[in-house]
Amino acid sequence: MSAAGVVPLIERKKNGGELSRDEIAGLLRGYVAGEVPDYQVSAWMMAVLWRGMTEAETLAMTRAMVASGRELEWEGIGRPTVDKHSTGGVGDKTSIVLVPLMAAAGAAFVKMSGRGLGHTGGTLDKLEAIPGFRVEIPLDEMRRQVERVGAALVGQSPELVPADGKLYALRDVTATVDSVPLIASSIMSKKLAGGARSIVLDVKWGSGAFMTTLDEARTLARMLVRIGEGAGRRTRAVLSSMREPLGRAVGNALEVREAIDTLHGRGPADLWALTLELGAHQLLLSGLARDADEARATLTRLRDGGEGARKLAELIQAQHGDPRVVDDPSILASAPVVVAMEMEGDGARWVAEADARAIGDAALVLGAGRRKKGDPIDPAVGIVLRARIGDRVEPGQPLADVHARTEAEARQAIEALRAAFVLSPEPVAAPSDAYEVIGE
Amino acid sequence: MSAAGVVPLIERKKNGGELSRDEIAGLLRGYVAGEVPDYQVSAWMMAVLWRGMTEAETLAMTRAMVASGRELEWEGIGRPTVDKHSTGGVGDKTSIVLVPLMAAAGAAFVKMSGRGLGHTGGTLDKLEAIPGFRVEIPLDEMRRQVERVGAALVGQSPELVPADGKLYALRDVTATVDSVPLIASSIMSKKLAGGARSIVLDVKWGSGAFMTTLDEARTLARMLVRIGEGAGRRTRAVLSSMREPLGRAVGNALEVREAIDTLHGRGPADLWALTLELGAHQLLLSGLARDADEARATLTRLRDGGEGARKLAELIQAQHGDPRVVDDPSILASAPVVVAMEMEGDGARWVAEADARAIGDAALVLGAGRRKKGDPIDPAVGIVLRARIGDRVEPGQPLADVHARTEAEARQAIEALRAAFVLSPEPVAAPSDAYEVIGE
Repeated sequence: MSAAGVVPLIERKKNGGELSRDEIAGLLRGYVAGEVPDYQVSAWMMAVLWRGMTEAETLAMTRAMVASGRELEWEGIGRPTVDKHSTGGVGDKTSIVLVPLMAAAGAAFVKMSGRGLGHTGGTLDKLEAIPGFRVEIPLDEMRRQVERVGAALVGQSPELVPADGKLYALRDVTATVDSVPLIASSIMSKKLAGGARSIVLDVKWGSGAFMTTLDEARTLARMLVRIGEGAGRRTRAVLSSMREPLGRAVGNALEVREAIDTLHGRGPADLWALTLELGAHQLLLSGLARDADEARATLTRLRDGGEGARKLAELIQAQHGDPRVVDDPSILASAPVVVAMEMEGDGARWVAEADARAIGDAALVLGAGRRKKGDPIDPAVGIVLRARIGDRVEPGQPLADVHARTEAEARQAIEALRAAFVLSPEPVAAPSDAYEVIGE
Repeated sequence: MSAAGVVPLIERKKNGGELSRDEIAGLLRGYVAGEVPDYQVSAWMMAVLWRGMTEAETLAMTRAMVASGRELEWEGIGRPTVDKHSTGGVGDKTSIVLVPLMAAAGAAFVKMSGRGLGHTGGTLDKLEAIPGFRVEIPLDEMRRQVERVGAALVGQSPELVPADGKLYALRDVTATVDSVPLIASSIMSKKLAGGARSIVLDVKWGSGAFMTTLDEARTLARMLVRIGEGAGRRTRAVLSSMREPLGRAVGNALEVREAIDTLHGRGPADLWALTLELGAHQLLLSGLARDADEARATLTRLRDGGEGARKLAELIQAQHGDPRVVDDPSILASAPVVVAMEMEGDGARWVAEADARAIGDAALVLGAGRRKKGDPIDPAVGIVLRARIGDRVEPGQPLADVHARTEAEARQAIEALRAAFVLSPEPVAAPSDAYEVIGE
């Protein structure tokens, strides 16, 4: 498609009309080929933000993005293929727990992840806290690893959906990130190109998530599921709260340690509950379990029998990391300064909020994340929560431990962290572990 | 302003917020300097289409555009400065009549015009139908001409509002042309930079105009007047209908001939009525007349006494054209083929519509205008209407003469032209010459 051909398409979207599948495919193809300039695509995307996209347009957009690159093909792999995506949150290390458990359960699980930006962490950054671990694996080597181990935890391959990188970079600088159909097509194009037959989506909502309200999360979840189903994949979305961080650890090595603890049965209850929920849906969708009870029992047995932890060690070794970390997390980097943030005040209180966003921002102060793309991160630093929503706390009791490079940074983070906690003189109920599920 | 600084501005406009005067100035300055890329400006403009601009933003935008280039300064010119802008229509040759009359009345009138595109003609193309006439005059030479003659009819100087050309080119390829605040700031920035103290705007509405409804035209007119007043200029807008073409001639040399005829008192009534209306407001705003009656009497006297025609000859000579054209329009180019389009049917009818847009499109078929920028035009060809809305017509009577290069093109244009005429078995009233006026 030429630049001149794009004007009527922008015009139609601007006026609230619909583009055909061929028009969307032509637009994307022209953009990737460099025939359609950035300034037309950014105007069109702003019109999409304004007018939205129909379901047919969103599916066409997703397919056009998939068609911009390679699609992985898992014929003959001998295991049902599963995939998962989380819309991102604070302290979300679920993939590091779930992927080895699912591989141990007999699935083939290639999890391609991104890097963290802003208050949310990225799975790649967490994995790289493991000494030697490589997240960039050529596709042919990755396939051999999946045949042998059943799983891979890698970076998004640049051979898959190259249009996404180009589009995302443009959205980032033109304030067109927060469009549900553009978000949905970006997420699902990568899942579709990854080739898994069963896809489970973890759509987070709350202060620490991209979608701040449950309603927004539902809208996105429904669209993700419709795209997946529309493309012939078994797809389900789980809505989970990101009001407080997931688990207690926020920061890369600290989160890896918590994921390993969880595989050993010593992890925080909310992290295990979400892992079970997502894993159970994957087992059901891929035919590896007949019902939810069996699925949960399988995952619990694989954890308790140590198969999950052993599979993680196998996976780490396959990706050139030091597998001893699974039995000895002390080989992970640790911060030189650990300072507790203690409760101030004069009487017992209950934790009413431990705001995920504010805690993510405090971790950013320590150097656990990036303010902008390309910033270096420190794997050792972070925050470990010692009180969570619903907990009763007394003056002087530590609410969190801050793992910092220096005393000064620790003090700065504690300052930021204090704003995250809201304490109540009345008892507060702990958040429920019930999830809303969207899809078949 | 840097590209990174622009993202929050796009974001705010997208969310319906307002930008400050400094932010808009920084954005425009950065764009003209090449620091802010096209893709950010196109996204921002689409957000402006979506959310609109406040009056303060529109004024800030206009001022920022003015600040991108030179501003003309008329101190010491010894005559009140006036300017005029028409939003463009079919057959609009008013400037060629009005400018010499106003100069004869004692005003300084520099009229900068554009070229035609699509169904609407451009004053520059019309002027260039006069043998030898030059529309590109250096600014210092133009000033000397205004001191001597009182007027100039020239192309938009590239030294004035360079931001407008760059922005308009981007709007054209990103479907962001039809934004009232962007249109208003584009028009008014050029008027403000031109330096005239009194500005009269001819805002057209109807099928042949950019604004198709009276309401749209009112909205634009109000904004234009507010910008002008906000910048300290005496400003008025006249709303005029573009349901049928203005006057009878459509096509460059044909329109020049009609403008000359009008200065000789032999022109069509509607063209003279609009000239009188616009000129009377200019005389009033610039203090050259005390009331509307005096203003109209002055203009009529200058026409009837031949001062207007003589001033046009003087102006043409100053701009290297052949001034004999004023007394002998036959030196203008003429088309080799003239074919009448006759009324078909079997009984008397009244002309209910002579659709300006369709007539403009028929003139395009003949080569009188451009389908796209840079297309060559033929000054000789065009259409002369011989029946207008309200006229009683009989079978076989000519409705229009088509001036063409070939018989084939004439036939093609007649085909197109037929669709422009709607005939009624009942009498139809001629359009009224009453104008709505907006402004002080």
